[in-house]
Amino acid sequence: MSLTQVSSWTNHGGTLSVHEHFSNVTSCAMQFAVFTPPQAAGGPVPVLWYLSGLTCTWANVMEKSGIQKYAAEHGLMIVAPDTSPRGEGIPDAEGYDLGQGAGFYLSATQAPWDRHYKMDDYITVDLPWILAEHFPKADLKRQGIMGHSMGGHGAITLHLKNMDTYKTCSAFAPILSPARVPWGRQAFETYLGPASPVWEAYDATELVQKRQSQANILIDQGEADQFLTEQLDAGLFLMHCRNHGQSATYRFQPGYDHSYYFIASFMGDHIAHHASVLAT
Amino acid sequence: MSLTQVSSWTNHGGTLSVHEHFSNVTSCAMQFAVFTPPQAAGGPVPVLWYLSGLTCTWANVMEKSGIQKYAAEHGLMIVAPDTSPRGEGIPDAEGYDLGQGAGFYLSATQAPWDRHYKMDDYITVDLPWILAEHFPKADLKRQGIMGHSMGGHGAITLHLKNMDTYKTCSAFAPILSPARVPWGRQAFETYLGPASPVWEAYDATELVQKRQSQANILIDQGEADQFLTEQLDAGLFLMHCRNHGQSATYRFQPGYDHSYYFIASFMGDHIAHHASVLAT
Repeated sequence: MSLTQVSSWTNHGGTLSVHEHFSNVTSCAMQFAVFTPPQAAGGPVPVLWYLSGLTCTWANVMEKSGIQKYAAEHGLMIVAPDTSPRGEGIPDAEGYDLGQGAGFYLSATQAPWDRHYKMDDYITVDLPWILAEHFPKADLKRQGIMGHSMGGHGAITLHLKNMDTYKTCSAFAPILSPARVPWGRQAFETYLGPASPVWEAYDATELVQKRQSQANILIDQGEADQFLTEQLDAGLFLMHCRNHGQSATYRFQPGYDHSYYFIASFMGDHIAHHASVLAT
Repeated sequence: MSLTQVSSWTNHGGTLSVHEHFSNVTSCAMQFAVFTPPQAAGGPVPVLWYLSGLTCTWANVMEKSGIQKYAAEHGLMIVAPDTSPRGEGIPDAEGYDLGQGAGFYLSATQAPWDRHYKMDDYITVDLPWILAEHFPKADLKRQGIMGHSMGGHGAITLHLKNMDTYKTCSAFAPILSPARVPWGRQAFETYLGPASPVWEAYDATELVQKRQSQANILIDQGEADQFLTEQLDAGLFLMHCRNHGQSATYRFQPGYDHSYYFIASFMGDHIAHHASVLAT
């Protein structure tokens, strides 16, 4: 598949580059960013996926989180996909929490969304092929996944469904029980139709009752997060982790909110968490 | 003087806060940001000023540079002023490099700019009084100054004119000879009138021939910076530094451009440079 480089910057001794390609999965042009650490000059390096939250593109994490600094220290390649298909002719909705920028890392079954909104398949099948073809320094035998908010939901659900692929997992302020909270219910009803067993494949709290990984899932959550009570409740997920033997570390961080100032404050811990497994 | 807090975030164990006040110097409302490191809980900490480049506000450095991480490690308070007066009724120009967002850290003498464009006086006289009154943890006996591009010009000129105040100085890709390059000539002609000795007070290459500080001025410059040849020439400045005994370290960084990806890559070195003098 052909790939166009949109831009490129020298950054922390490595290279941050942005690429565009036509995806046969989402049936539209997609952009993603890759940070290649300096260690790639010596051979293949592990790949860590970063899935962003509502409204975001690749740019938020690369501009605001400081992830490149830590990736350069530990020798990890960072891949940051978009959060949905985008552009003219792609279905959209009025709110910030549905449609473009709000793909929820699932593969839609309901018209008109089912033609383009295939972010699960895009990230787990389509984009890895692009990496394999165009990024010879990406060691796809050593992959981890992380994300923020909607992207934390994506990281944990994709990890639990593809634990042989993504060997490590972490999240900032993830949506852990989407079928039970407004953001998730609206998205699932729109993209997947009325509540049904289909929903369970996209809900970390449901998934962890059926499959558990060998990884320790690291989660940081700001105590002053404005979305904590309504959207980000962790109780059921953590109960099922304990009852079913899924290792998880959930840290409440006093004073922190939902912003990238929160993410930047603990990004170093998260990259070290992934590197301790992937880069050894 | 009264001060309104616009916003506040817990960040890297400290606090990032944004404030607004009416300035009698610029005759309009001004916003600035302060990062207070966790060490301030134990007593006053040194103050490091960060002056931004064309078009920027306090937000660019706080969102994109990672400065808070290093300031939290070394115990420095960061103060990030705006780059000009702003708002309705404030004179402006069409280009990005003149008028609002392009104050050039000078105090204008030409109408209509002379009523509001007093950024030199604002930063060296007005804002320190605000800090003294409202930020008891700011140790104004230990201050340093740094900046990017137009803000690098500001940092070095304000340092050389106020070396007892700003004991340390560094810059990313600074405009070092503004009277000789298009950005600077346009600004000086507009704000200060036709070329005259007045210009010399705002030109690092001229100033360093007349006064030298005890500090080592640290400068990083990307070799792939798109503005390097036309706007950022360093030859004359460095020659005069050598001939007049001003200590300066000028580092060319291969591959890096003018962006915050460049700044973020070397911010750790700059904060350590300031902390080695201010925080000991």
